[in-house]
Amino acid sequence: MNSFGHLFRVTTFGESHGPAIGCVVDGCPPGIAIAPEDFAHDLARRATGKTRHTSARHEADEVEILSGVYEGRTTGTPIALLVRNTDARSRDYDRIAEQFRPGHADYTYWHKYGIRDPRGGGRSSARETTMRVAAAVIAKKWLAETSGVAVRGHLAQIGDVVPGSHDWSVVEANPFFWPDAAQVEQLETYMDALRKSGDSVGARITVVAEGVPPGWGEPVYGKLDAELAAAMMSINAVKGVEIGDGFAAVMQHGSEHRDEMTREGFLSNHAGGILGGISSGQSIVVSVAFKPTSSLRLPARGLDVDGNEVEIVTTGRHDPCVGIRATPICEAMLALVLMDHALRHRAQCGDVGEVSPRIPAQA
Amino acid sequence: MNSFGHLFRVTTFGESHGPAIGCVVDGCPPGIAIAPEDFAHDLARRATGKTRHTSARHEADEVEILSGVYEGRTTGTPIALLVRNTDARSRDYDRIAEQFRPGHADYTYWHKYGIRDPRGGGRSSARETTMRVAAAVIAKKWLAETSGVAVRGHLAQIGDVVPGSHDWSVVEANPFFWPDAAQVEQLETYMDALRKSGDSVGARITVVAEGVPPGWGEPVYGKLDAELAAAMMSINAVKGVEIGDGFAAVMQHGSEHRDEMTREGFLSNHAGGILGGISSGQSIVVSVAFKPTSSLRLPARGLDVDGNEVEIVTTGRHDPCVGIRATPICEAMLALVLMDHALRHRAQCGDVGEVSPRIPAQA
Amino acid sequence: MNSFGHLFRVTTFGESHGPAIGCVVDGCPPGIAIAPEDFAHDLARRATGKTRHTSARHEADEVEILSGVYEGRTTGTPIALLVRNTDARSRDYDRIAEQFRPGHADYTYWHKYGIRDPRGGGRSSARETTMRVAAAVIAKKWLAETSGVAVRGHLAQIGDVVPGSHDWSVVEANPFFWPDAAQVEQLETYMDALRKSGDSVGARITVVAEGVPPGWGEPVYGKLDAELAAAMMSINAVKGVEIGDGFAAVMQHGSEHRDEMTREGFLSNHAGGILGGISSGQSIVVSVAFKPTSSLRLPARGLDVDGNEVEIVTTGRHDPCVGIRATPICEAMLALVLMDHALRHRAQCGDVGEVSPRIPAQA
Amino acid sequence: MNSFGHLFRVTTFGESHGPAIGCVVDGCPPGIAIAPEDFAHDLARRATGKTRHTSARHEADEVEILSGVYEGRTTGTPIALLVRNTDARSRDYDRIAEQFRPGHADYTYWHKYGIRDPRGGGRSSARETTMRVAAAVIAKKWLAETSGVAVRGHLAQIGDVVPGSHDWSVVEANPFFWPDAAQVEQLETYMDALRKSGDSVGARITVVAEGVPPGWGEPVYGKLDAELAAAMMSINAVKGVEIGDGFAAVMQHGSEHRDEMTREGFLSNHAGGILGGISSGQSIVVSVAFKPTSSLRLPARGLDVDGNEVEIVTTGRHDPCVGIRATPICEAMLALVLMDHALRHRAQCGDVGEVSPRIPAQA
Repeated sequence: MNSFGHLFRVTTFGESHGPAIGCVVDGCPPGIAIAPEDFAHDLARRATGKTRHTSARHEADEVEILSGVYEGRTTGTPIALLVRNTDARSRDYDRIAEQFRPGHADYTYWHKYGIRDPRGGGRSSARETTMRVAAAVIAKKWLAETSGVAVRGHLAQIGDVVPGSHDWSVVEANPFFWPDAAQVEQLETYMDALRKSGDSVGARITVVAEGVPPGWGEPVYGKLDAELAAAMMSINAVKGVEIGDGFAAVMQHGSEHRDEMTREGFLSNHAGGILGGISSGQSIVVSVAFKPTSSLRLPARGLDVDGNEVEIVTTGRHDPCVGIRATPICEAMLALVLMDHALRHRAQCGDVGEVSPRIPAQA
Repeated sequence: MNSFGHLFRVTTFGESHGPAIGCVVDGCPPGIAIAPEDFAHDLARRATGKTRHTSARHEADEVEILSGVYEGRTTGTPIALLVRNTDARSRDYDRIAEQFRPGHADYTYWHKYGIRDPRGGGRSSARETTMRVAAAVIAKKWLAETSGVAVRGHLAQIGDVVPGSHDWSVVEANPFFWPDAAQVEQLETYMDALRKSGDSVGARITVVAEGVPPGWGEPVYGKLDAELAAAMMSINAVKGVEIGDGFAAVMQHGSEHRDEMTREGFLSNHAGGILGGISSGQSIVVSVAFKPTSSLRLPARGLDVDGNEVEIVTTGRHDPCVGIRATPICEAMLALVLMDHALRHRAQCGDVGEVSPRIPAQA
Repeated sequence: MNSFGHLFRVTTFGESHGPAIGCVVDGCPPGIAIAPEDFAHDLARRATGKTRHTSARHEADEVEILSGVYEGRTTGTPIALLVRNTDARSRDYDRIAEQFRPGHADYTYWHKYGIRDPRGGGRSSARETTMRVAAAVIAKKWLAETSGVAVRGHLAQIGDVVPGSHDWSVVEANPFFWPDAAQVEQLETYMDALRKSGDSVGARITVVAEGVPPGWGEPVYGKLDAELAAAMMSINAVKGVEIGDGFAAVMQHGSEHRDEMTREGFLSNHAGGILGGISSGQSIVVSVAFKPTSSLRLPARGLDVDGNEVEIVTTGRHDPCVGIRATPICEAMLALVLMDHALRHRAQCGDVGEVSPRIPAQA
Repeated sequence: MNSFGHLFRVTTFGESHGPAIGCVVDGCPPGIAIAPEDFAHDLARRATGKTRHTSARHEADEVEILSGVYEGRTTGTPIALLVRNTDARSRDYDRIAEQFRPGHADYTYWHKYGIRDPRGGGRSSARETTMRVAAAVIAKKWLAETSGVAVRGHLAQIGDVVPGSHDWSVVEANPFFWPDAAQVEQLETYMDALRKSGDSVGARITVVAEGVPPGWGEPVYGKLDAELAAAMMSINAVKGVEIGDGFAAVMQHGSEHRDEMTREGFLSNHAGGILGGISSGQSIVVSVAFKPTSSLRLPARGLDVDGNEVEIVTTGRHDPCVGIRATPICEAMLALVLMDHALRHRAQCGDVGEVSPRIPAQA
């Protein structure tokens, strides 16, 4: 299925090198002010070609609003967004049509469908995530305006480099979404060396939603954290998802992990803002592991469609660290999940009035 | 939503201390031989009271088949399974009705619904997972019979203890689903000390599906790994999910991570059997982090429904490590996801014949 | 699929002669007062054995609430309802296992599943509708309490007999849900003769929802009338559904059909309360055609499972007019659709405040 | 929701006078040959401006395939189809923005969303049905190629005119999809007089699917007829749906209605090819009632957005009988439902082999 969300439902379409990519946002509340230029900021944050550290594809990524907006406001009918592919050099990918690259979806698509669009990875390209970011612009706006929810994120690890300090104010000021300004030069050097070597490396991203009221989410299969896990794992190259302390909880004691409560607020946030699948009013914290891209100049053993062993070398443009520009994508998925749950919550529990006691997010 | 799966759809119901728990399995293929006693093995593996290391609740967990089976075979109509709650001592939980325990869903349910069933955690109790295990018995059977798929799992870490060796044959022979027989005595001592201290600890579980053919899964939001992540994160106390190498991939290079292919098979399985959201024919490997339970004899700071600060002490029966008996639950969720995707795959791609080349799972 | 509704979702299970029938109501708002005895009235209205004009099966139809209700109020978690089958004389149905009765689902189930439960029609029995009526008791209550919506219905035709007058106050006072008291004796005679002849006849039912505010429904595939059509057509033996004037509109002129509007209200209600898939604030009017039952004492040509032609004669208990007790079922489906749309509407459009001008339902 | 179908899922978007309309077809089997010109035939059949009897809007309706097709074949990924609106004269609709027309969705959209796009009816325009017809071109092709299913339809009544004879071969040869060539001149005169009078009239359409194998459909809420009813009722202006004999069954006896079976086939088809929600192998027959359009030159009483009473006169282009060009739309919905059920059937029942006895559709 190429749709995401139950009530605020995003359906994306498009291949990396087809005529266009796009999405349909169904179930959007009416009355939200939206203009084509609203999409520019987040799409630019996600865009390839931002710096020398990401791949060389240059797309204008101009969003055309095809429906669902009248006189600058959403009408409640489906919003279709379209982005034309303008820089699709499919000549780069001719040989790939006959080969299965290791670490790629080539072999699995082939076995699923018996046919595949090899141009730029077709549907498996990260280009699809453009439309997630676009759709989430609407969600972020509604969440901020109606509930005061703010979503942001940063890179939390590249290879074995972790931030030495944490300052949100520097995250958008460097090409790595890195929270420690003192390390940016080190990362530049690291990435240059990596690109030169022809190899790639993994990354970890952390995204946070602040201001989420207690009560969003559902108890069992529709748990807020379960849907966040699916949302993040649906991003290309993601191999792991954590809520709050995540895998660190394996080594913790219960007396340490449980977040004690006082009238002044919670004393800690090991849970990452979710208890029993439902938001607690604390910040929602999600960490995501990105694998290193498999498209390398270093040769690898692979197969062709006739079953012969071949040496695979990727010469097209590719990122040495796909995680670098994935921060806006992770933010987008967090926003989409929250938006959907906000609507689901008021559908079922709109009769429930003010509930007390309500304590602050953090003491 | 209390339903899981798109085509093989399981809906569970029931609270920890209500009259019964149960599930409805809709969309099941006809003709599968199922009898009440088929559920006994996995339910016993999951059951509380198995050893002194898990909580003291004793439930018969006898499954009644209410519908969907005729003369011992599934008919294609919904299969309802019912388990009566026989050992629900709600007197243990009287005080909890007025208190929000830290690390529990008490506060979040209260804020969502304005009402909650406090007896044994109500709907947020791990007792719900009984029905996941029951439903998955049907899925495991069908997967084995029609596709040769086998699902199994083991505990992979408790606190800071990791297995020194790995032997599938000992996993079912000790109360910890532990793959290293030499460490079982150490774990016994560890758990006894933990119980005596009144504290708890986290755990990591790994589940594996062998024999999955290449082609199951979907490219974007319905990725096999995305739905596995949701499935696992929907289990109580889970805080993290990894596919294949998971977070270890953050520190890997692409030249290490990408699984090279030869005619004799893949040379490694860092990907955990899934590429681009679709199974590759390798073993599917999923790791899951369980937090330490928050129900402790050690006092903690909490609140009551009037907003007063209170000291919370749990005196009822609880596991010092909830992860110990979660292996069958993780297996169940893996089986349910695979079953659903097997049906979805033949729905869309039933026209696709034999696809070559197909290589072995492992060289 | 055995589930109905998107947000207020009812999943039913059970066969006519299995151990039990039941349902799970998921997505129900919390805080609704519900007790087992609340179901008795509507289940009795639907029950077989009510008069000599309906079939002789006597079921207590006592509803057990298995979950989702705590101290008499819904908690927001799934509500499971169970009714044991106590009067299932499967000895009546032995021969039917080997035969395909004309006008029944025997042949089609056989071809779909390769297996079928022949006892009392199995899953295709109208007994399944018991749970629709039970689930709708909750919906009716919520609709009445939160929105002032009232749902009721009556028989509008049996064979070629149509009511000579219309008086809601007599509908519940006769065994036919007939709105013209003067004709009840005539209907008694008609039905007695029909039963004696061994034949059956069709019927038309009209159900009405009053008090629905304007704005419920959705524009395109989720149109309120589209989902009502599906809801009604999903009832056993239904062959046609009309909204408002229905097929009479084929012969009308636009100048007659369009309901003119004044400040005092609409001047007519040909539309049946729905325009563009969305409620207009007028009464919602739905008519439903029931076919005559095919289970007759009159012999018919049929086949057995070996392909031999056989003479089919039904000797078990059956209604000469299945439409007679279908009024509560049609009401139930109307209530379920409205409840679901009420929740969907506030999910998407909860930000929209009072909209003016709003005019009365009828001038 | 603007999506239709569970596995073969069509999402449409677009307003009558926005930049474009379009759809996304998700879940399509791979390998189907599709080219832009394949859509031309059915879109032309549906198009406005075909004859002087339908409204004057002239659209090229050229379909652009944006995704999901590679080298002329579907790849299994979502197929996005786009049609630009080229003849949207929104100047005709300026006054309508301030008025609620009787019989239209103006008032109901206003009350749902608090905002509406008044240009040409916005989302409530029949222009949306263009994309249903386009999506169904793919479904018709797959149904014909893999199962030999053929879908066709004809007008069965206009006002009080019914066909005097039935000849499929003339249906496509006249502008009315009328099965009796001898009456075409009469209809021309009828429509000319109607247009001159400024009024409109209703119509009945019958669509038929031949070659459907027994076994498609589902027992309860997913009944084939239930989903057909929803599909047809979701078309603009539809007020009634019948399967087989439909409302005529109200007056029939069971001995007449039940379709007897012999080794040579069924002896009649009162059921319309569906028993218990599942196809019987007979022709599936659906009849649909279209109301007369409410857009008339004859004045009517309506309201404006300030609550004042106004006289409504429609001067733009409109059909005196919207049913005339609805035959391809009804065919489309029939094909979409069948396609979805074909996929759902093989998902659940792909293990069921050849089932005997199977008898011909008609003796």
